[in-house]
Amino acid sequence: MTQRELYFISGSPPCWTVMLALEVKGLAYRQRRLDNAKREQKSPEFLKVSPRGQVPVLTHGDVTVREALAILSYLDATDLEPPLFGKGPKETARVWQVICECDGNLREPVGDISRPLFRGKAQEFAEPITKAAKVVRDELGLVETRLSSTPWLAGEALSAADLTLYPVLMQLSRAVAREEAASLELALHPIAEYFPQLGAWSKRIETLPGYHNAYPPHWK
Amino acid sequence: MTQRELYFISGSPPCWTVMLALEVKGLAYRQRRLDNAKREQKSPEFLKVSPRGQVPVLTHGDVTVREALAILSYLDATDLEPPLFGKGPKETARVWQVICECDGNLREPVGDISRPLFRGKAQEFAEPITKAAKVVRDELGLVETRLSSTPWLAGEALSAADLTLYPVLMQLSRAVAREEAASLELALHPIAEYFPQLGAWSKRIETLPGYHNAYPPHWK
Repeated sequence: MTQRELYFISGSPPCWTVMLALEVKGLAYRQRRLDNAKREQKSPEFLKVSPRGQVPVLTHGDVTVREALAILSYLDATDLEPPLFGKGPKETARVWQVICECDGNLREPVGDISRPLFRGKAQEFAEPITKAAKVVRDELGLVETRLSSTPWLAGEALSAADLTLYPVLMQLSRAVAREEAASLELALHPIAEYFPQLGAWSKRIETLPGYHNAYPPHWK
Repeated sequence: MTQRELYFISGSPPCWTVMLALEVKGLAYRQRRLDNAKREQKSPEFLKVSPRGQVPVLTHGDVTVREALAILSYLDATDLEPPLFGKGPKETARVWQVICECDGNLREPVGDISRPLFRGKAQEFAEPITKAAKVVRDELGLVETRLSSTPWLAGEALSAADLTLYPVLMQLSRAVAREEAASLELALHPIAEYFPQLGAWSKRIETLPGYHNAYPPHWK
């Protein structure tokens, strides 16, 4: 069997997404963790694998795949079960739609909230954080509505959409839990209190097989 | 045959991507053009179809699909030929990788260049435009290298990657051709002069069947 290797940075949402996918599909792989503090992803050696120094990267025999969604598509094409991109046109469209909407509408404002909070700059960036939090609340409101009618984001089955959103939500959750975020009154902590369906959905993700193997090592 | 309808805004790159895909696959559809100047995409009627007022949206019988890549995935699932997401795991991974890299690394700086130029604000935004142009040149340099070994972005066959990049490149091309861009010396006009492989690739796109049907009406 050809060995899979995954280059990742602990806590990076797209890396976490790929690790969850590997676990859900029950695929063995070797973890190649890069140390962001040492900027290992910008080392000459790694730049040969990923010219922009970006993670995740999956290698599998002579195949190298960069970008989380490309890796998920690859895994679905090599090992279909369980399918992460739906069965049939309508489901496939739905999965990609939710992924694109998450990437296009949520990832950036979540970054605008979490970056300054992780760097201890809540007060300095209070205004952009507050502005981004409004966008995030509106977007999570749409997700909340969707989850009130189906257990998973794209319907009755777990999909790549769930695996894409979950790590982004965890990054947000960790950022807004910081003590200095409290005074900003972002109405996002704890997330499950403001968005109970999202809270229940998170719990479902957390019971997936292999969930703990994918958990960011430096958060443990 | 169930009627397809596409809601779009003339000149919007993701809308153009979908129109190219419909033409390449030879699929009939009805054009439902929305007028951005009148903000028709934010009308109560259209918000029922697309809650964020975003285009493109494809309707097909009882199916409604938002987001260009979701629509392309849907079209590939209903009408495979020619496949837009490759044949087999390696090709599929390659197509998605190029799409993600284009979306993640090129779309935003191209917007940072074109938005102020289209609004006649070249001088006011000279610094961010110049900064974004550097990022764009680096990224197009990587694309140029790729196109020196294969005719299409993801290999030997046209794919969704080509249909995603082309409209973004045309938006850039149109922006940097503006007279007031000249003094900024962005080294991007004409693009084919700085990136000849990209120029040749654009010409290949422009000979695709139905290319002219997908061309933005208000650019004609």
